[in-house]
Amino acid sequence: MKSFKRKVYLDTVSLDEARHIIKKKVINRCIKLEEEWIDVQNALHRISGKAIFSKLSSPYYNAAAMDGIAVISKKTYKADLNHPIELIKDKDFVFVNTGDMIEAPYDAVIMIEDVIEMKKNSVTINKAAIEFQHIRPVGEDIVASEMVIPSHHQIRPVDISAMIAGGINQISVIKKALVSIIPTGDEIITHPEEMKTGKIIDSNSHFLYHRVIECGHHPVKKKPVKDNYDLIKEAVLKVVKESQMVLIVAGSSSGSKDYTASIIEELGEVFIHGIAIKPGKPVVVGMIDNKPVIGIPGYPVSTYIAFEQVVKPILDAFFYQKVKENPTVEATLTKKIYSSLKSLEFVRVKLGYVNNKLIATPLNRGAGVTMSLVRADGLLKINKKSEGYEANTSVQIELLKDINAIENSLVSIGSHDIILDYIGNLLIEKGVNTRLSSAHVGSFSGVLAMKRGECHIAPIHILDEKTGVYNKPVLKKYFNNHEVVLIKGLKREQGLMVRKDSDKLIQSIKDLIRDDITFINRQKGSGTRILLDHLLDKENIDSRIIKGYEFEVNTHMMVASSVFSKVVDCGLGVKSAAKIFDLDFIPIGFEEYDFLILKEVLDTKEIQDFIEVLKSKQFKDIVQALGGYKIVNIGEIYEGSI
Amino acid sequence: MKSFKRKVYLDTVSLDEARHIIKKKVINRCIKLEEEWIDVQNALHRISGKAIFSKLSSPYYNAAAMDGIAVISKKTYKADLNHPIELIKDKDFVFVNTGDMIEAPYDAVIMIEDVIEMKKNSVTINKAAIEFQHIRPVGEDIVASEMVIPSHHQIRPVDISAMIAGGINQISVIKKALVSIIPTGDEIITHPEEMKTGKIIDSNSHFLYHRVIECGHHPVKKKPVKDNYDLIKEAVLKVVKESQMVLIVAGSSSGSKDYTASIIEELGEVFIHGIAIKPGKPVVVGMIDNKPVIGIPGYPVSTYIAFEQVVKPILDAFFYQKVKENPTVEATLTKKIYSSLKSLEFVRVKLGYVNNKLIATPLNRGAGVTMSLVRADGLLKINKKSEGYEANTSVQIELLKDINAIENSLVSIGSHDIILDYIGNLLIEKGVNTRLSSAHVGSFSGVLAMKRGECHIAPIHILDEKTGVYNKPVLKKYFNNHEVVLIKGLKREQGLMVRKDSDKLIQSIKDLIRDDITFINRQKGSGTRILLDHLLDKENIDSRIIKGYEFEVNTHMMVASSVFSKVVDCGLGVKSAAKIFDLDFIPIGFEEYDFLILKEVLDTKEIQDFIEVLKSKQFKDIVQALGGYKIVNIGEIYEGSI
Repeated sequence: MKSFKRKVYLDTVSLDEARHIIKKKVINRCIKLEEEWIDVQNALHRISGKAIFSKLSSPYYNAAAMDGIAVISKKTYKADLNHPIELIKDKDFVFVNTGDMIEAPYDAVIMIEDVIEMKKNSVTINKAAIEFQHIRPVGEDIVASEMVIPSHHQIRPVDISAMIAGGINQISVIKKALVSIIPTGDEIITHPEEMKTGKIIDSNSHFLYHRVIECGHHPVKKKPVKDNYDLIKEAVLKVVKESQMVLIVAGSSSGSKDYTASIIEELGEVFIHGIAIKPGKPVVVGMIDNKPVIGIPGYPVSTYIAFEQVVKPILDAFFYQKVKENPTVEATLTKKIYSSLKSLEFVRVKLGYVNNKLIATPLNRGAGVTMSLVRADGLLKINKKSEGYEANTSVQIELLKDINAIENSLVSIGSHDIILDYIGNLLIEKGVNTRLSSAHVGSFSGVLAMKRGECHIAPIHILDEKTGVYNKPVLKKYFNNHEVVLIKGLKREQGLMVRKDSDKLIQSIKDLIRDDITFINRQKGSGTRILLDHLLDKENIDSRIIKGYEFEVNTHMMVASSVFSKVVDCGLGVKSAAKIFDLDFIPIGFEEYDFLILKEVLDTKEIQDFIEVLKSKQFKDIVQALGGYKIVNIGEIYEGSI
Repeated sequence: MKSFKRKVYLDTVSLDEARHIIKKKVINRCIKLEEEWIDVQNALHRISGKAIFSKLSSPYYNAAAMDGIAVISKKTYKADLNHPIELIKDKDFVFVNTGDMIEAPYDAVIMIEDVIEMKKNSVTINKAAIEFQHIRPVGEDIVASEMVIPSHHQIRPVDISAMIAGGINQISVIKKALVSIIPTGDEIITHPEEMKTGKIIDSNSHFLYHRVIECGHHPVKKKPVKDNYDLIKEAVLKVVKESQMVLIVAGSSSGSKDYTASIIEELGEVFIHGIAIKPGKPVVVGMIDNKPVIGIPGYPVSTYIAFEQVVKPILDAFFYQKVKENPTVEATLTKKIYSSLKSLEFVRVKLGYVNNKLIATPLNRGAGVTMSLVRADGLLKINKKSEGYEANTSVQIELLKDINAIENSLVSIGSHDIILDYIGNLLIEKGVNTRLSSAHVGSFSGVLAMKRGECHIAPIHILDEKTGVYNKPVLKKYFNNHEVVLIKGLKREQGLMVRKDSDKLIQSIKDLIRDDITFINRQKGSGTRILLDHLLDKENIDSRIIKGYEFEVNTHMMVASSVFSKVVDCGLGVKSAAKIFDLDFIPIGFEEYDFLILKEVLDTKEIQDFIEVLKSKQFKDIVQALGGYKIVNIGEIYEGSI
């Protein structure tokens, strides 16, 4: 590898300070976007340059506002209930439909419902018409020269319709900013076919690209540039000329291959290097030729936070728009969260209503976990001055999804199994509104969450060591008064997973103590961890001898993936995960994977949808195809009496 | 014109019934959209067909999670504060940056901050490294075979980024529905150049076109078809084949030229003809060849309501999406609203915060007033069973705009002048957050609104007949305790407007009584109406003799527009309006157009922004260009002591 040249952040500032600097030094000083004339018909979601004034009145003429007859009002003055009068067609009246033009000598409309008798060439009325009655006057909708939309207005379908009604064909809108995105890094590839160890697919530029589109601007994704000062500098110099903004992805930190800050410094000016936010700290904000040039940190969640907090305010300011804030909701936190005093932290959370209370469960906080963003319903901000929150605290959550979708969620907290994803998806495909929102924290944490009333469902596989019975004893042990029932799930096979090409013969749990074998463990409280510790106990093995016992991951799939990628030699997990990665599987036995459910929600439509999916043929087919499961009495309810 | 053939609605149903019929008979029975394979990079906002599973793990290898050194953990076990150990480069350790691959024999990373001494070929540490410390394990982000997004999911930038990281190039999404829009009507033109009396520019199809785009589908706008049964039938037959949905614009009612219902009946089936909503009643819902065919009423606001209530639910169901509801807020109504018991009415309202209370002012309720939609901040629904609401009632408003934008609004209720539009626009161009939200109800209603605490500003021009003084007497007469001040606005010239080519010599108010002259009046409570009545009084003229005295419009511009379009012979209004329509102007004198302002808000940033705009050079230039105004002491504050 290379020698290490230590750099430090120029000056880490708080997010508030950063916002202030961005406003003063970037937004107020950077180039203004030009305007361009376009067809009104192409103006959807564009931003008006100047106010738009109508050219024509609409309606352009006096129009009938009702179906009926157009009359000469003074000829009707004498009509009343006792003195009906007859009007002669084409002399005293004409038939009109709504929208028809009313011309002299006609000056009023009588609704067809008020015509009391109709003959071939005449009608009879018994009520006088007032001048202009039921006539839509010229300009009722839009008056020529009236302001239809103001400056800097984002154009909606109804604005387009009003402008067209006002006789406007072309308008001047603010040009989109051309935003160039330059991915950097020796390890970057652009196609999955090129994937090999040591490589990373460039996914961050795609995120940035599509967010720039959502902000209404024009992104251009450049080819990745190697970690080389001169190459990156050359690329930046070239794109700055043709762009209104440049985003340089990765290389924004202070490692030996992080050139962004120095390059911007050389070519222009750096205002910020490092913001006290987590994830997203190593962000660089600068300008070259009065164009914002931003160094975006390379971890996916850091990219996300840096975009939303730094890039978006500048993109919106180009269009003279205020940044729209997402709505916030109050929710109760399920777990204690520690946070550093050094930075403002953004924690992704899952949300769900349990017992009419909105519950927030933190997701993986790693900066590298894109899936925590994909799965997130909201963001919890933990202030720089806060050390975090206790469990059960009420917190403000910024919503990332529609609250209505969250209202229909069944909240599942507990042990992980890939069948949960499939159950969730079958609910969607079934066309019901019920959604499954799962957090993977292990069986025992699931039991605790259910006890605290934080979930509707807790998937568990907990072995009672005394009786050798799975799950059922949990009811008596942790829940009084039968408030919780158990729904039968599946039997699933647990075993040791080993690569097929491994030359280290592994046959049982006893092999884990060997010095040439590295193991990967599951987190504390997971059913698989309980099973492992039970097995080790039975064999009288001290876990401290096992290499990798301390290295914990949260799902079966991550265990299998680590074995597959030669990171470790073996792990304990379910057969379905081994099968997906084509690993050898040394069976240890079947366990029972069931669902704890609050009795009081058992009859809700949502739980009934859930049970229906469990019992469905589609689900059985999926389970069959995955392998490693047995289905016996699935969906059966055990109330704790046996 | 033509003879009148009376038709009736087949069966008018409530909106709830209509929704039920649409679900049962249209959504459940209409054709399902196909799926298509597209590049992930083109998938923004598309809807996934099936669940998408990752193909690669990300990271694909064990990666350094920190900048520092990769070490062999067992070689560090003995290091502690008292026993620092030295590690040899390329034998015991290598330098790594975040993201670098960690390969055997290295199995842990020590942060560069924890390296206590650095020499050319060695480093010293004083703390042991635990296996796998600061290593990002394979699949930490995404595990191969994991479900990235479920079925029927609308794809966001973060989903694209996750799919690309998971090695996915192409995905299957639901095809967009091709929605054909057929405008109908003899009076329809498509270009403003073709405008003449009796014609209407087709603006509704543009609204529908762009709303279909916003719903994610593919609109096709067809050429307008004349009001002819066979021609429309032919057009429908042709487009049904190539479309998944057809919208026929206008002709959906029961007039003699309304063919939509009969045509759908002949070619397929009509489920609904007429929904008890206002605007939007004459809507037709049917199917031809299992494809929804909807008759859309021709008034712009009816088109809007029919789209949102009938078309959108079907378009969303094509994509298996629930209709997203707009958020609602509670607001206090400024005026009494009567509503018919026959239908559910949708009233457009302006919103604003006055005295920390959200205030809703109803806009023009006409079905033909597109501008009421352009200006609306929200919608008030008045149930079929309700006769309406009293003023000061608390009501639920569906938000059509971001509530944050509403929070910064200065609420102006009172007399209309086009300079209000310009002031609002100058506030926007000034770059401040303050927005001007004006409702035009006339001077006197503005005074009452201010008394009730429903506005920040009331623009008025009220002549005190005894003293001949404008506006100032209002302070003493209606407001005690000096709670309101007057900000000096402009002097503006009022006069009679007459067409230049008119052969009817009009020289003064006295000419209004002539039998050959038709007048157009302003609404009761407007300053211009007060002025007119004052002038008539002075001349001893009985208003009942004046032709058109009963015909009221709400703005100067509508008066001018009506004179220009030969609807009437003359009207009373301001010079700027006459100038815009190139009308002769017979001056009657200058009046004072000033602003009442609540004293307690005088020092707020918003009012200061407003006053700054009044005093600005840009505003003076605009006023100059409009003509008919005099600026004396503009922005000066009168507190009522004189």
